[in-house]
Amino acid sequence: MTDRPRFAAFSHQGTLKYGLAKGEGIIDLSKRHGERWPSLREVIAAGALARLAEEASSLPPDYALSDITFEIPIPAPEKLICVGVNFPDRNEEYKDGQAAPANPSLFIRFPRSFTGHGRPLIRPPESPQLDYEGEIVIVIGKGGRRIAEAEALGHIAALSLCNEGTIRDWVRHAKFNVTQGKNFDRTGSIGPWLVPYTDSAQLADIELTTRVNGELRQQDRTSRMIFSFSRIIAYISTFTTLVPGDVIVTGTPTGAGARFDPPIWLKPGDVVEVSAQGIGTLTNTIADEA
Amino acid sequence: MTDRPRFAAFSHQGTLKYGLAKGEGIIDLSKRHGERWPSLREVIAAGALARLAEEASSLPPDYALSDITFEIPIPAPEKLICVGVNFPDRNEEYKDGQAAPANPSLFIRFPRSFTGHGRPLIRPPESPQLDYEGEIVIVIGKGGRRIAEAEALGHIAALSLCNEGTIRDWVRHAKFNVTQGKNFDRTGSIGPWLVPYTDSAQLADIELTTRVNGELRQQDRTSRMIFSFSRIIAYISTFTTLVPGDVIVTGTPTGAGARFDPPIWLKPGDVVEVSAQGIGTLTNTIADEA
Repeated sequence: MTDRPRFAAFSHQGTLKYGLAKGEGIIDLSKRHGERWPSLREVIAAGALARLAEEASSLPPDYALSDITFEIPIPAPEKLICVGVNFPDRNEEYKDGQAAPANPSLFIRFPRSFTGHGRPLIRPPESPQLDYEGEIVIVIGKGGRRIAEAEALGHIAALSLCNEGTIRDWVRHAKFNVTQGKNFDRTGSIGPWLVPYTDSAQLADIELTTRVNGELRQQDRTSRMIFSFSRIIAYISTFTTLVPGDVIVTGTPTGAGARFDPPIWLKPGDVVEVSAQGIGTLTNTIADEA
Repeated sequence: MTDRPRFAAFSHQGTLKYGLAKGEGIIDLSKRHGERWPSLREVIAAGALARLAEEASSLPPDYALSDITFEIPIPAPEKLICVGVNFPDRNEEYKDGQAAPANPSLFIRFPRSFTGHGRPLIRPPESPQLDYEGEIVIVIGKGGRRIAEAEALGHIAALSLCNEGTIRDWVRHAKFNVTQGKNFDRTGSIGPWLVPYTDSAQLADIELTTRVNGELRQQDRTSRMIFSFSRIIAYISTFTTLVPGDVIVTGTPTGAGARFDPPIWLKPGDVVEVSAQGIGTLTNTIADEA
């Protein structure tokens, strides 16, 4: 598991790059392939992730991980789509026994609502209700429209993690839609790695956890998702043509801060870690907007 | 009014270009400025709309309008944000007297959910409920975060029109959010023109109409909008940093097909025209997906 290739997008001395992790360092792939493929989006579109990983594996790292600034893995996807409620909520399971919804709720986030691994999530002055949501990210490799559920996993190029950070009161700020509460600048994060997806065991039944200051807050397994990865891809591609590099954030387990009574919001200095087996750990602190 | 400059994005012999309309023709600005500014988004970011219009005005047209294919004016904006209910609904006004909502409802569309002027809106096989919504589009010229309402109009670079075509039953396909019903490929349109915004009279109290097969279906004035253009810009920039070329679709008057009893959906062969004073007329037919 730990020897799967791990790609990342990052900044080094102010330049946006991408590379392949090696131990505690990173191999700069932009200086080798950046003309042809400006970002990991184009690498994925060319179907070249596996080849780059193999070719680069014998190279020495160019920089220490401690010397780079992580960026979100696909800085400018054509689409970034998020799935709403997608894990059984224990309240619902045990109290009202409501049937699962027929179709996934979807919303869209702009890339600038996310920051990279290791960088602070930003609590804006408009609200104290910054909340975490740990999620698994799939990145589309092979595009398509009306992709059959049976074929859908073959359209995934890579996996990552998301802290789908939310300004909770602003998701209900207007009469409908969660847009504004999900799109405050740098309130969420994606990363650290883009891990090529080559084996269905990488998604079938893996554990997803979120910890705040070391305390376990969310914990569930992908086998319990209401809408499977296949179903999500099939459903979304019913209405929009998916293209390589499209990012889908697949939903969070119960246990966000809003579920506590009283709710527990993130505050400056908190550390949030989203982990999934084989994909890594995405860590962010919280800071007030400067 | 009719002598304001009119920019457009278009394809000619398969190449995406932009230009300036002149009579029944168009002056190709891409061949003159495309290296420096690949699209109107970059022209706007450079603050160069007015200069290009003036410089090009004496040139002869390169192509007849009948020989180009209109594209949406900003083919790849960083953001494309739509405002929900934003004109008084006569039902609500006269029947339940509900107070106007406190904040605008917002949703996001992908550019590929739109097509250009003169091209068919596509009715997908998944639903017969293709509906029109005529709207005014503002394009951001000067970016910013937390733009003051009093300054907001100064951040608009240009105006256009939108038929914010919707697959009505799919806006309620899931438990929340209208995402999927608003994002079927090529169900809406934007265009034909990008008209530079230089005078507040261009937006203050203009008439907006939608006709289907010549029959007036929507008619209202911008002075009656629930959320003004200024308020929309100020509100959106509270949570996200606006950048040049961002597209905001500002809401539709009452009278969409869904409001009739029984509803009247668009069908192949119908012609929809969205018009606003000084901005133009956006015309599309309807076709079933091939």
